[in-house]
Amino acid sequence: MILPPDRPLAIIAGGGSVPLHVARAAEQAGRKTLVVGIEGEADADFDGFSYERFSWGQIGKLERLLSGHGARDVVIVGGVRVRPDFRLLTQLDMGTVKALPEIYAILRKGDNSVLTGVIRFIEARGYSVVGAHEVATDLVAPEGTLVGKPSAEQLADARLAIEAAWLIGQLDAGQAAVSVGERIVALEGAEGTDAMLERVALLRETRRVRFAIPGGALAKCSKPQQDLRVDMPTIGPDTVTHAKAAGLAGVAIEAGRVMIIDRAETVRRAEAAGFFIQAFAPQAPSP
Amino acid sequence: MILPPDRPLAIIAGGGSVPLHVARAAEQAGRKTLVVGIEGEADADFDGFSYERFSWGQIGKLERLLSGHGARDVVIVGGVRVRPDFRLLTQLDMGTVKALPEIYAILRKGDNSVLTGVIRFIEARGYSVVGAHEVATDLVAPEGTLVGKPSAEQLADARLAIEAAWLIGQLDAGQAAVSVGERIVALEGAEGTDAMLERVALLRETRRVRFAIPGGALAKCSKPQQDLRVDMPTIGPDTVTHAKAAGLAGVAIEAGRVMIIDRAETVRRAEAAGFFIQAFAPQAPSP
Repeated sequence: MILPPDRPLAIIAGGGSVPLHVARAAEQAGRKTLVVGIEGEADADFDGFSYERFSWGQIGKLERLLSGHGARDVVIVGGVRVRPDFRLLTQLDMGTVKALPEIYAILRKGDNSVLTGVIRFIEARGYSVVGAHEVATDLVAPEGTLVGKPSAEQLADARLAIEAAWLIGQLDAGQAAVSVGERIVALEGAEGTDAMLERVALLRETRRVRFAIPGGALAKCSKPQQDLRVDMPTIGPDTVTHAKAAGLAGVAIEAGRVMIIDRAETVRRAEAAGFFIQAFAPQAPSP
Repeated sequence: MILPPDRPLAIIAGGGSVPLHVARAAEQAGRKTLVVGIEGEADADFDGFSYERFSWGQIGKLERLLSGHGARDVVIVGGVRVRPDFRLLTQLDMGTVKALPEIYAILRKGDNSVLTGVIRFIEARGYSVVGAHEVATDLVAPEGTLVGKPSAEQLADARLAIEAAWLIGQLDAGQAAVSVGERIVALEGAEGTDAMLERVALLRETRRVRFAIPGGALAKCSKPQQDLRVDMPTIGPDTVTHAKAAGLAGVAIEAGRVMIIDRAETVRRAEAAGFFIQAFAPQAPSP
């Protein structure tokens, strides 16, 4: 989806550098852009951008900011460390109070439903929620080799790992897998990708038979039930560092469906480490 | 497969109590039984049974023992800690020397192929390799509840976990999975079931959101490429203890395709812990 440049855009910004990257991409595309930082989360330097802030108790303020900007499209992007507990907030503006029944209904659901609920909440107010990668298209990779020169063996590991990652995504179990010597050695569950990579590093140290083989690949895939507009799996410079520490030779990602945080630094580290990053066409949906 | 009682049986025994259990079942079935312990591995007390020993360099002796016993069926059962390295063996009997080209060809393959190779090696000499569970049928469980009274929620976790375990078996990745609150939280890779359960225990301690829910189930499945005659996934008393330590409420296994080590003690511990064990019909083979 290519967005016409004349639509004003609002970026609701959490932590990290990605919101700034999206803001820059929007301005480069000639879009009138407003960044609304989430208090206590947004931490990039938005100097030179129209920048406002709101806290979770100020949904009314948020709505005024969005409508005052004339935004039709809203991007929600960046890390959110603290899940808001509206029961603990003492200062709620009128917009928040009015929205409380709707907010509580959203928060009672699981994690995936909360995100879906937030999208519904915003769209119910007349906005379109747009994926960060639809504004900053370089946040995702097209099919092919992004960096490095993977060998046939490395590509075989990458492909097997991505098939496994995709399969466990169907189970809603995790979104990452590791293949070494064309054998799946680790599958991600609730522990997350970093803990899984630590496990692989440990398996290597303890020299299990399978791990005599050098190299191998980490793969990361989106899950079919993820709304990629607000919830996309990510890789970044630390992924390269951690995968390298686990003795792996590269990372496989799904083209268009995995976000690359700080692409320049990610590529730089991969090049320095002799590491490859390969994007594969998304797997077919389950029948 | 019910074996006729008149066929002499040889049991090539590794470590642990299972070989003894199989020997008792064979004798109870009226079969003439010879136990051949693997030197350095077999550690049960085979008093009262015809018992011989051989070491890896004595393939000739093993062949003489089997043929002297008149065995037609051979069970290979019990733990083997040390994978034999025939290059390091200094004393090889003539039967071993003659078999060396065949042995090297087997050992060059991966783990699964080694077992397949051993079966082929024995069958090439005119014996049938028989599964321990075909002699001691109580080593596996029929479909249904083996112990405990699982609730509908617990059965839902058990069923989801077994589906996940089965699915990753198709990937040849692992054979165990954990579901908590009808969500897959851990999938086994090369780390093995115990390490996976430790991970679940740790996730509980660190109180990840998903783990607010008590209970959950471990599942264990065979992999489609496993030859269940010599390589069957197992549960036992320690599985109950470790799964309980991970806060789980029960274990799901595949009926007829997962071995229960020391069933009496396993059931006793499960009962003491208020733990369930449920056997499910094997999943359909992949299309």
